[in-house]
Amino acid sequence: MAELQVETDLRGVYSHGTRALPGYIQSILDEDVNPAPQFTVVREGPSFGIIEGDNALGHPPSAFAMEMAIKKAKKTGVAAVGVHNAGHFGAAACYGMMAVREKMIGFATTSTAARTVVAPGGATPVAGNTAMCYALPAGEERPIVLDMACGISAWNKIRTMHMYGIPIPTDWMLTADGKPTGDPDEGRMLAPAAGPKGYGLAMIMGVLAGPLVGGLMGCHRAGGPSEHFFMALNISSFTDFDEYSAELDRGIRTVKASKTVEGVDDVYLPGEIEWRNYEMWIENGLPLHLDHLQGLEAIAEKLGVETFWEREYSES
Amino acid sequence: MAELQVETDLRGVYSHGTRALPGYIQSILDEDVNPAPQFTVVREGPSFGIIEGDNALGHPPSAFAMEMAIKKAKKTGVAAVGVHNAGHFGAAACYGMMAVREKMIGFATTSTAARTVVAPGGATPVAGNTAMCYALPAGEERPIVLDMACGISAWNKIRTMHMYGIPIPTDWMLTADGKPTGDPDEGRMLAPAAGPKGYGLAMIMGVLAGPLVGGLMGCHRAGGPSEHFFMALNISSFTDFDEYSAELDRGIRTVKASKTVEGVDDVYLPGEIEWRNYEMWIENGLPLHLDHLQGLEAIAEKLGVETFWEREYSES
Repeated sequence: MAELQVETDLRGVYSHGTRALPGYIQSILDEDVNPAPQFTVVREGPSFGIIEGDNALGHPPSAFAMEMAIKKAKKTGVAAVGVHNAGHFGAAACYGMMAVREKMIGFATTSTAARTVVAPGGATPVAGNTAMCYALPAGEERPIVLDMACGISAWNKIRTMHMYGIPIPTDWMLTADGKPTGDPDEGRMLAPAAGPKGYGLAMIMGVLAGPLVGGLMGCHRAGGPSEHFFMALNISSFTDFDEYSAELDRGIRTVKASKTVEGVDDVYLPGEIEWRNYEMWIENGLPLHLDHLQGLEAIAEKLGVETFWEREYSES
Repeated sequence: MAELQVETDLRGVYSHGTRALPGYIQSILDEDVNPAPQFTVVREGPSFGIIEGDNALGHPPSAFAMEMAIKKAKKTGVAAVGVHNAGHFGAAACYGMMAVREKMIGFATTSTAARTVVAPGGATPVAGNTAMCYALPAGEERPIVLDMACGISAWNKIRTMHMYGIPIPTDWMLTADGKPTGDPDEGRMLAPAAGPKGYGLAMIMGVLAGPLVGGLMGCHRAGGPSEHFFMALNISSFTDFDEYSAELDRGIRTVKASKTVEGVDDVYLPGEIEWRNYEMWIENGLPLHLDHLQGLEAIAEKLGVETFWEREYSES
């Protein structure tokens, strides 16, 4: 878990990295989560598997499931493994990248415990702001990694925009009464990304990481453990890996050479900004917000664990 | 091909049904397409396959590939089959629904021959307006079918809006010079749906139905045959089908009972509008636009084929 969370911080996705650690630990202290789970493979075949997560934190059974999918895909070409009954798994990209390291295409999705996304025109939350990730290896270039939520925005992003005084479009959120609002204190529901497209994807991810794995539809979830779903495609089953990766490299360079509209300097590949963070911070250290650090210090103190860092303040 | 195209018309997706037939036939007359292709299985394993399409029209090798994926998924749980070197395959939903009829989840994607979608901030088309489809069976309720393009709109939709005098948002299209425009006569490039999300999906679908299947990245395509990619997940490998389908039915009913925002009467499941068309028109006959019918008549006349219909005009 520590490895996956630090990797997520290094990609600059603070919301899904160690900032969430105090909450995870608190859920153990509150006995909402099983701190000593036994994972069981309850179904298994050549290209599929189901892991019973035993109400564990989400990361360990998820990593176990993706490892299983990778191992099976090496033999059969493609494999998918679901996790039933486990907690939040952090950033979907972590699991996609496990496949990338094995020269595979990785796919990961999860059902979130909370329902917040409405159907187009709807005023009842019917889906989670579900995450989905595709991760694709290239050759010399960085892997392409798309890790997206199906809602129009992340709630965290809305709160951050509000904090910085950036106006929030009034078609992003609905109040509890189903009225459009730009005020995050009033907003209770979220529009899907691109209307029927994000809504459709949210519904479908909620079935893959839901009823397909023995869990509930997104519209029936109300907190508690959830389900996760992982898939690995072994590239060298389908084609020559070197030809594949040469074309990926060439494509990535073509996209980077793209002309830009006025006022924009550069275009980015999916996941490129995260790779830049990672490369910079793995060299120079990871900048953390003071609140983030204090959150970690507070839970450490509560558990009687000594922190080992010294604070270094920066103006940025 | 006829079966898949008529099914597509019956779903109300006229752009991808028999309206395209004259173009397909013309491509044979122009010798751009091989009218007597030999499909070859060039790679095959427990859960994967690659079909060489021999520059065929897209539908036949695509249906063959999805059939192969379904057969393999029955044994292994999941399987994916790609088609290399074939033409436009019509509507992605047709292939997804082949899996649904076998109590499987179907996935289909394709690379389009034309590049029109830009990266966020970009002014060079780097991806096709690629289609992706997920089709999921339910129990008593209609299957959930999402068939979407990754761009902000279909070009056909833009042209139709323009025809009816509906203004087109200026952030949908760019001119050849990379300037925003609401004029479809000036528009040459398309924004991705939901910015980085649709862009990321377009890139990734272009790799699945591209280099993974021995083809080019979307950004390197310039007409000619393309690639397609199909996947089937056998639900009863992962879970009890009856439990799965009961939860899907329950979820579909929960979504349909959704409250709505002011001015909206109803929310729809992904694909529901197409199912309603299908159910209505399979009973009462399929309404066709006069231009559509004349297009079919013109190609029939060119080939010396007699048409069998009588025109019945309606005011709508």
